[in-house]
Amino acid sequence: MSLDATLARIDADLPEALDRLMALLRIPSISTDPAYKADCDRAADWLVADLESFGVKAEKRTTPGHPMVMGHVDGDGPHVLFYGHYDVQPVDPLELWDRDPFDPAIEDTDKGRVIRARGASDDKGQLMTFVEACRAWQAVNGAFPCRITFFFEGEEESGSPSLIPFLNHTAEELKADIALICDTGLFESRVPAIMTQLRGLCGEEVVLTGPSKDLHSGMYGGAAMNPIRVLTKILGNLHDDEGRIQVPDFYDGVPELPPEIKSQWDGLHFDHGAFLGDVGLSTPAGERDRSALEMIWSRPTAEINGITGGYTGDGFKTVLPSQARAKVSFRLVGQQDPHAIRENFRAWVRGQLPPDVGAEFHAHGASPAGQMTTTHPAFEQARAVLGAEWGAEAAFTGCGGSIPVAGYFKSILGMDTMLVGWARDDDQIHSPNEKYDVDSFHKGIRSWVRILDAIR
Amino acid sequence: MSLDATLARIDADLPEALDRLMALLRIPSISTDPAYKADCDRAADWLVADLESFGVKAEKRTTPGHPMVMGHVDGDGPHVLFYGHYDVQPVDPLELWDRDPFDPAIEDTDKGRVIRARGASDDKGQLMTFVEACRAWQAVNGAFPCRITFFFEGEEESGSPSLIPFLNHTAEELKADIALICDTGLFESRVPAIMTQLRGLCGEEVVLTGPSKDLHSGMYGGAAMNPIRVLTKILGNLHDDEGRIQVPDFYDGVPELPPEIKSQWDGLHFDHGAFLGDVGLSTPAGERDRSALEMIWSRPTAEINGITGGYTGDGFKTVLPSQARAKVSFRLVGQQDPHAIRENFRAWVRGQLPPDVGAEFHAHGASPAGQMTTTHPAFEQARAVLGAEWGAEAAFTGCGGSIPVAGYFKSILGMDTMLVGWARDDDQIHSPNEKYDVDSFHKGIRSWVRILDAIR
Repeated sequence: MSLDATLARIDADLPEALDRLMALLRIPSISTDPAYKADCDRAADWLVADLESFGVKAEKRTTPGHPMVMGHVDGDGPHVLFYGHYDVQPVDPLELWDRDPFDPAIEDTDKGRVIRARGASDDKGQLMTFVEACRAWQAVNGAFPCRITFFFEGEEESGSPSLIPFLNHTAEELKADIALICDTGLFESRVPAIMTQLRGLCGEEVVLTGPSKDLHSGMYGGAAMNPIRVLTKILGNLHDDEGRIQVPDFYDGVPELPPEIKSQWDGLHFDHGAFLGDVGLSTPAGERDRSALEMIWSRPTAEINGITGGYTGDGFKTVLPSQARAKVSFRLVGQQDPHAIRENFRAWVRGQLPPDVGAEFHAHGASPAGQMTTTHPAFEQARAVLGAEWGAEAAFTGCGGSIPVAGYFKSILGMDTMLVGWARDDDQIHSPNEKYDVDSFHKGIRSWVRILDAIR
Repeated sequence: MSLDATLARIDADLPEALDRLMALLRIPSISTDPAYKADCDRAADWLVADLESFGVKAEKRTTPGHPMVMGHVDGDGPHVLFYGHYDVQPVDPLELWDRDPFDPAIEDTDKGRVIRARGASDDKGQLMTFVEACRAWQAVNGAFPCRITFFFEGEEESGSPSLIPFLNHTAEELKADIALICDTGLFESRVPAIMTQLRGLCGEEVVLTGPSKDLHSGMYGGAAMNPIRVLTKILGNLHDDEGRIQVPDFYDGVPELPPEIKSQWDGLHFDHGAFLGDVGLSTPAGERDRSALEMIWSRPTAEINGITGGYTGDGFKTVLPSQARAKVSFRLVGQQDPHAIRENFRAWVRGQLPPDVGAEFHAHGASPAGQMTTTHPAFEQARAVLGAEWGAEAAFTGCGGSIPVAGYFKSILGMDTMLVGWARDDDQIHSPNEKYDVDSFHKGIRSWVRILDAIR
């Protein structure tokens, strides 16, 4: 096997690789919205066909939700499982997009060429870096670097309701020596990062009901309890003045950062001014006594992700609504138990309800935080070769987001996961005008070839 | 003139009168939504044609917003100005309507026949009771009972932006001995009520902006300030635990109820248990030391009429939004100054903003409370004749809603206003499935004939 020949092949094939990614990006596979169910199915079919086109034995597997894609190739050496997700976030507010989110294009920007589309970075572009690396390897070498299982999910952005049953049913087929996931980013858009700790997530929706119907605030205002008033009163208590979360026992299981990790993170010289400045902010919003990196990597959060009630259209309507609702999520760390936090949050809300107001709750996903074991040799092997591609030594880092599947790979399949990715901080994932740098895509493919070469 | 003949004519003409009302109800004249501008215009045209059909000299008058309708007839005796509004509230949530809100129908219910449509009660049905009374009088007697000016507005449900300039420009033409308004209801759906005090209104929209764009709560959660968190924190402070409003100086100009009025209201034996029970509530939500009638008639309020931010669709999205917004209205009493309250509210919000969060405000209407002078003889004359129609002695009452035009008639035209109306508490105005009892419509027309006969 010639590493140089494979890298050269990747360079030459880049236009075709971009065309393939654009084809996948054109499929609006929004998993959380039932209106896009057929599109999710179509994205899975596209991936099956693409894997088969370079010799992978691939299949779509149905679930009660969106399908999984599985593929297998034989090879010598270790057995790796690669995971990515083909579903994407909703696109609203659509009016803030500069183009149709599902009509991808390569754009020249002052920071270089980018692929603009929903899912370009999260996660279709990242997923395809691994697929393209395998395609190039096979094309140059007539074989694959090692035994590889491809595993693509279509429900990552909607709480992965089918994942745990599928992992349980398919455990024997999925088990490998190590899992690889490409759904993370470069540290500060420049340093290749292997993420060894991730926050968990607990999503809750709360619906408060007061009057049995919408009322006229002129007739009832003052005498009838307004559920928006109650919702703002309760959620306004979610954080104290120091930024600490007020749900009882919320901090149970939150560890202090080990000194050696804290010192490693301090050594990254995180530019929190630039991190916040890029999005128009200047002051970290978390607990007052924590560094910005701790706030996003090792401290838990509570965020109100959505709130609605009453009249929200143009103009004004003096309605006193029957209902108000909010979506709240908690990012979890250490040993925090998402189920205990859900129950504590519900009890905390119920305990603040005035007479005549009832609460209903809907669960939206629960996953504990993930702490990777880094003893598998692949971690150091990968870290050692990434510097050659990116010009900066790779680091073990944390991540503010939640990639629950890594935890399930450990708990259900007994497998460690190595999280490596090429996204940039300004990729605007989950936001309008999402993009993925052509440079991330190109170097990402080359990086996977280097990693596969190192660990095979 | 024969009162009995005119009342008999009304009874005989009821089917045709209902047909006319249904025609007006079919026009979706939602004034707050620019999409219905042409429909508002069409409603004004319909009224002009209807007035002309029984000898009123009527015209549509343009304004920068929706048009006014003016009509005149000559006669002996006092000169009355009748005011009503032809615009209606929005209809959302549309899915809670049992029929198309603009496809009116007569329905048989266990409480009698009702006219079901948006605007049936507020205010098209009420407005037409006066029009039908005049039509019947003219048909039977070949003349009108007195000099009458008809004045219909099309912006009452959207803050009446054109009203004050129009009153100023048209003052000479509009001045009369007394104004009559039909936009109120029977006390407890049974006692004819002449409303002598009304609450004012100050509407505000607040838009908080934190990050310059929507963020991923996994990436930024904990470090970036979430404007929904700020909005709930601030609005959660709007009332204290006793139900008192926390905006500084809010209670300046709020009078204590005079003992004679309080005793008159106590004599009404208001059934606040039934009032709240009808809408699924049991506990008055206002200041703890006030009676329910005081809460809705003589105490000021603050209500959050709408709130929105982040992802509010199906499923879940871990977005940390750039903006959050709320519509807030204050019902005012006594000498409370709506402009001072607006400024105090804005300063109070700004004073609670954390770093990096900005607030924008949009004004949506401001009108002081109205206290009617009841010395004009029409008040006692009307009160004396209404009992014959309704079987219960009429009372001078208060009103929780805001009818700003009554205040402007006094301040701009120097004219007292008598507010009489036939709406019922369960008319569901501003809510889905609005209705107006056929009995309200029929007896309302007859009542106006009795009133015109008494005061001419």
